[in-house]
Amino acid sequence: MSEHHTPASIAEHILNNDRFSQWLDVKIIQCENGYSKISMLIREEMVNGLGIVHGGVTFALADSAFAFACNSYNRRSVALDTSINFIKPAYKGDELIAEAKEVHNGKSTGLYQISVFNQKKEQIALFKGLCFRTDHPVK
Amino acid sequence: MSEHHTPASIAEHILNNDRFSQWLDVKIIQCENGYSKISMLIREEMVNGLGIVHGGVTFALADSAFAFACNSYNRRSVALDTSINFIKPAYKGDELIAEAKEVHNGKSTGLYQISVFNQKKEQIALFKGLCFRTDHPVK
Amino acid sequence: MSEHHTPASIAEHILNNDRFSQWLDVKIIQCENGYSKISMLIREEMVNGLGIVHGGVTFALADSAFAFACNSYNRRSVALDTSINFIKPAYKGDELIAEAKEVHNGKSTGLYQISVFNQKKEQIALFKGLCFRTDHPVK
Amino acid sequence: MSEHHTPASIAEHILNNDRFSQWLDVKIIQCENGYSKISMLIREEMVNGLGIVHGGVTFALADSAFAFACNSYNRRSVALDTSINFIKPAYKGDELIAEAKEVHNGKSTGLYQISVFNQKKEQIALFKGLCFRTDHPVK
Repeated sequence: MSEHHTPASIAEHILNNDRFSQWLDVKIIQCENGYSKISMLIREEMVNGLGIVHGGVTFALADSAFAFACNSYNRRSVALDTSINFIKPAYKGDELIAEAKEVHNGKSTGLYQISVFNQKKEQIALFKGLCFRTDHPVK
Repeated sequence: MSEHHTPASIAEHILNNDRFSQWLDVKIIQCENGYSKISMLIREEMVNGLGIVHGGVTFALADSAFAFACNSYNRRSVALDTSINFIKPAYKGDELIAEAKEVHNGKSTGLYQISVFNQKKEQIALFKGLCFRTDHPVK
Repeated sequence: MSEHHTPASIAEHILNNDRFSQWLDVKIIQCENGYSKISMLIREEMVNGLGIVHGGVTFALADSAFAFACNSYNRRSVALDTSINFIKPAYKGDELIAEAKEVHNGKSTGLYQISVFNQKKEQIALFKGLCFRTDHPVK
Repeated sequence: MSEHHTPASIAEHILNNDRFSQWLDVKIIQCENGYSKISMLIREEMVNGLGIVHGGVTFALADSAFAFACNSYNRRSVALDTSINFIKPAYKGDELIAEAKEVHNGKSTGLYQISVFNQKKEQIALFKGLCFRTDHPVK
């Protein structure tokens, strides 16, 4: 493996090893230090009887964006506390985009905010994530 | 469909129509008014490269327990704000049990707390969910 | 009382009747629909033995900014669920500024995000507030 | 100062140095490892124009109970992320009781849940607090 790890190569490494994000079929759009933007298409097996996406799926997309942003410095970070507000329902066939921004990059912890939008740029959810930083590299 | 809806029959109705909870293979253990207990086995496609369950999967299990408990009065309820604290990692092969308890059953909103344990009764996560109550029946 | 209520006149009305915000000595800087910016000076009686502001004081400032922003449409709104992340300590003598921005203005609920900064523009805290909207006017 | 520090003596030490908790006039009822129970009377200067307690005051009481419980091992701990759900309003003259229970006592972090009740044992609020543990003693 190369010595030079960029936020994008770290995110790809995480994604390549994350079976559940693969099931979600998460696509990486952009990764920078403390930042990530990813997307996902809502499939039939992600929804309930009304065709509305399960909260766990929206959470998982935001959580993946959070993981890419908070691990971007190649310092393995684990989620401590996360919260999500559901603003609008999303439906089968919608394309969801999650954008993670860094609020704080501390010595032991990091705070991130992830906004989830649909293809009409309507906000679907707001996610807040606090991570604990270990001293181990991601890759 | 029968006129008499119990918390268990409502939960089964929700589960039967929820494709994602079916993918998770959620099993209903017990449902009462304002209460639910469910379980799930962690499979290979729910974990990351380290064999640790994806946060979205743990969230989804807790969110399903939340849905069964807050819809138990046959008044359709939707999640407004949820938060989850991750306490211990869970691994492939673990059986997770989520137990939802009612903190408050209000006119327009309801507040629930869901504890997630593994098969050794170690607490994996703590979830808090606030729902908005509509005037529509669940079934 | 005049028929025309602006976000600023509603905020002043709330402040004039709020004994605790008066004790905090909250100053209103700006109020618009779904937006507010206020400030407060940290006094001796707001801190602990280390001279660090009590979490309840920072929360209260953010909560006041939240109240001004979510009541700005003259529709009485009450806090349902709020969370706050503490990023940096604040000290006696610091001037804290809280800025509330609207994430979502729904029919029954509203979602707001409040950032608290010190006089050096360092972020002290991030607050998220969900309110329930009643049909009563504020004034 | 004596070498032997009990949860109660640590809580008293914190309280003796905390000017804001003194203003609140917090009374310690019981302190154990990972546990605390405290009370407070709602005074005129803690409420708004409707006689309803300010959210910041309820938060502050819960936050103080959190501080006593999470510092009970004499390892200085600081709040990272806290959330509070407001369930019922409290009024001038009410006596509020906050009880903090430990959900998790980790190496670097701790998770606590604080329930706030009024004198009729009605639940007023539910608070969740995550702390970061330093290697410094409290006293």
